[in-house]
Amino acid sequence: MSSEQLVKASLDRVREIDGQVQAWAFLDPDHALAQARAADEFRLSGQAIGLLHGVPVGLKDIIDTADMPTENGSVLHAGRTPSRDATVVTMLRAAGAVIMGKTVTTEFATRTPGKTRNPHNAAHTPGGSSSGSAAAVAAGMVPLALGSQTTGSTIRPASFCGVYGFKPTHGLIPRHGMFRLSRTLDHVGLFARTIDDLALLAGELQGYDERDPDTRPRARTPFLDVAREEPPLPPMFAFVKTPHWERADADTRAAFAELTAHLGERVEEIELFPSAVEAWEWHTTIMDAEIAVNLEREWDKGRDRLSASLRARIEHGHQVRALDYQRALARIRPLHESFLELFEQRYDAILTPAALGTAPAGLESTGDPVFCALWTLCGMPAVSLPLMHGANGLPLGVQLVGPRHGDARLLRTARWLAARAASD
Amino acid sequence: MSSEQLVKASLDRVREIDGQVQAWAFLDPDHALAQARAADEFRLSGQAIGLLHGVPVGLKDIIDTADMPTENGSVLHAGRTPSRDATVVTMLRAAGAVIMGKTVTTEFATRTPGKTRNPHNAAHTPGGSSSGSAAAVAAGMVPLALGSQTTGSTIRPASFCGVYGFKPTHGLIPRHGMFRLSRTLDHVGLFARTIDDLALLAGELQGYDERDPDTRPRARTPFLDVAREEPPLPPMFAFVKTPHWERADADTRAAFAELTAHLGERVEEIELFPSAVEAWEWHTTIMDAEIAVNLEREWDKGRDRLSASLRARIEHGHQVRALDYQRALARIRPLHESFLELFEQRYDAILTPAALGTAPAGLESTGDPVFCALWTLCGMPAVSLPLMHGANGLPLGVQLVGPRHGDARLLRTARWLAARAASD
Repeated sequence: MSSEQLVKASLDRVREIDGQVQAWAFLDPDHALAQARAADEFRLSGQAIGLLHGVPVGLKDIIDTADMPTENGSVLHAGRTPSRDATVVTMLRAAGAVIMGKTVTTEFATRTPGKTRNPHNAAHTPGGSSSGSAAAVAAGMVPLALGSQTTGSTIRPASFCGVYGFKPTHGLIPRHGMFRLSRTLDHVGLFARTIDDLALLAGELQGYDERDPDTRPRARTPFLDVAREEPPLPPMFAFVKTPHWERADADTRAAFAELTAHLGERVEEIELFPSAVEAWEWHTTIMDAEIAVNLEREWDKGRDRLSASLRARIEHGHQVRALDYQRALARIRPLHESFLELFEQRYDAILTPAALGTAPAGLESTGDPVFCALWTLCGMPAVSLPLMHGANGLPLGVQLVGPRHGDARLLRTARWLAARAASD
Repeated sequence: MSSEQLVKASLDRVREIDGQVQAWAFLDPDHALAQARAADEFRLSGQAIGLLHGVPVGLKDIIDTADMPTENGSVLHAGRTPSRDATVVTMLRAAGAVIMGKTVTTEFATRTPGKTRNPHNAAHTPGGSSSGSAAAVAAGMVPLALGSQTTGSTIRPASFCGVYGFKPTHGLIPRHGMFRLSRTLDHVGLFARTIDDLALLAGELQGYDERDPDTRPRARTPFLDVAREEPPLPPMFAFVKTPHWERADADTRAAFAELTAHLGERVEEIELFPSAVEAWEWHTTIMDAEIAVNLEREWDKGRDRLSASLRARIEHGHQVRALDYQRALARIRPLHESFLELFEQRYDAILTPAALGTAPAGLESTGDPVFCALWTLCGMPAVSLPLMHGANGLPLGVQLVGPRHGDARLLRTARWLAARAASD
């Protein structure tokens, strides 16, 4: 199939469904088709092509593109047209991808929703902040999309929309050219319809960029090869309810009861160590303090055009003391080391909910990221698998979490779990 | 000469002069001699020996040693005996050094003086916070000593005591096992009587330690070889008075007028760019905020036994907002980049005072580090050369500063300057 055919099919699907879903902040069909035709011509020239050659990809509208606007989900940045591509966009183009368009983000990738609706039921939120990327993949408008995660902005919408979502290890994928909310917590997030596609995409996007101070030069991981391996032994899962389990709804409780029963001796429930219980507060301290700095210009020039909830968050950030901020930062490393012991001793992955339940009704909230904050704080890789459903028929994700830089093996474990679930 | 002879000569000098100078916080002659004899026996065995084999080295009493107390200059840590050597101590022992003893530090390497006096005039301060290390080298009690620098704690006492002092690039030498005041600003500092000795010592101490998050794996620099090279062209110096020049005393003004006249067209006076003018405030913000966290235990358990000035500093640190702390941190990188342009375009080193003047009279203050804070903030390598004197006959250092990781070339430039000054 040619890229032009693929992109045309994508555009057809957009025309068919996007009036209802509204996943796109910017989409120029002619520009997408021009990229597709160029990709087809390049392929015919016989030159070597990349692994994503001709494949349409959606980009959350906080990722800078030199050929499209990037508005960061705020009227304050309306019409903003960056002069350069973000590093991940350069990587995607090098791999041959067609940049399909920009997907809807919440306001500055925080909590105030954009226009997107859940493709499974338009009266429900798609989740956020990567709302459009999750919905576009779920509705079959693109096979791949990029988002971001600072609390639960990839895992939660992936769960609500019923697609695979992947937040790799902090620093694995460079963030240069993406709107920065929080250096400590921001991650690139990936959406796809299969684990293999997530692995393919992660393999292309891993890398070092001196402009992202949290990336490091390191050997490239053969993501797809590792993800496709059969695990040498069936994996062991650590089921972690977290201190917030009481807030999980009936669907989640029932689904996890069934899943853990099904996994039998391959899963053990473990208590979070006491040092992890405060992690949610540390996450808030760090995030609000860093948001206050990174949104300083917007605060100074147009705070009246920020949402009330974002204003409140920035105001809280202004009050955070350097002492508390540093204390919170200092706790990340020992906390991750406690998790490392779990992984080294016995478990391949932590098994935990992706969200409180299925996508809540209404569009005024993108849902609660409480089941994601801890793993994001620690920079650990997390994947959401669309393996379950609620009583209302909406999708419900399973979240798996691994140790930092255990990304490819986490996908291998996820693939094992997906196959096991499908076999029953 | 055997190590035993060398250490005996050092101990003789200690007996002769230390009653007056009081450079040592801990010195056990028998333990030093035992190390020396062991070094001599090892050498006789014909095995390969390190570059510092049998050489006595003094260590500032904030550097942990498994075989001696480390009291960090505070009654709160009286009798503290660490179970492990700091990374630099391990490196020194691997290079064959004899750990002579622990030198006097100010209270937690901040401003409240210890007992040490200036070897050139006991009524004057030796400077601080690495008071004992500078004085011990200056008085001929050891040829080499380690200190630290968070503002001007190596360069200033080196200037006051008339020895060579070197603060390498931030992260070049691992700090694990040293008392942490400020991750952002703490550096290991070196004292010696020649540039070659500084180069030899820096060459042995450079390295990666995963327990110091600011070190990186990198190729070892052949410090001594580079420092001994003749520069391909006579170096160019950028004379920087800084916004604090008016506070420099008459000795400093006269000495720099003479030095710059002597250097002729090899020196040009440059103005600091406006973005650097606030750097002193950023340094204070970062230092106080980080001290407040790193001295949290001491504050909680024994604030009444901290000096009033350190208490005030911690109280200020408690009030710093995360917003201002992050702003200050974010300014370091662009500021250093502005300096990089200077070095890339035209200059080999910045030439600037090491201190306001010669060592002030009295022991109640260690002097003002104002001419050091900017370079420390930027993590740039700095060296103090004992090339000048005040009207009172006390030594007066010249400070040279280079770009980050230009350490070895900075020593080469310093050697050129020292030779040029000696030739007249």
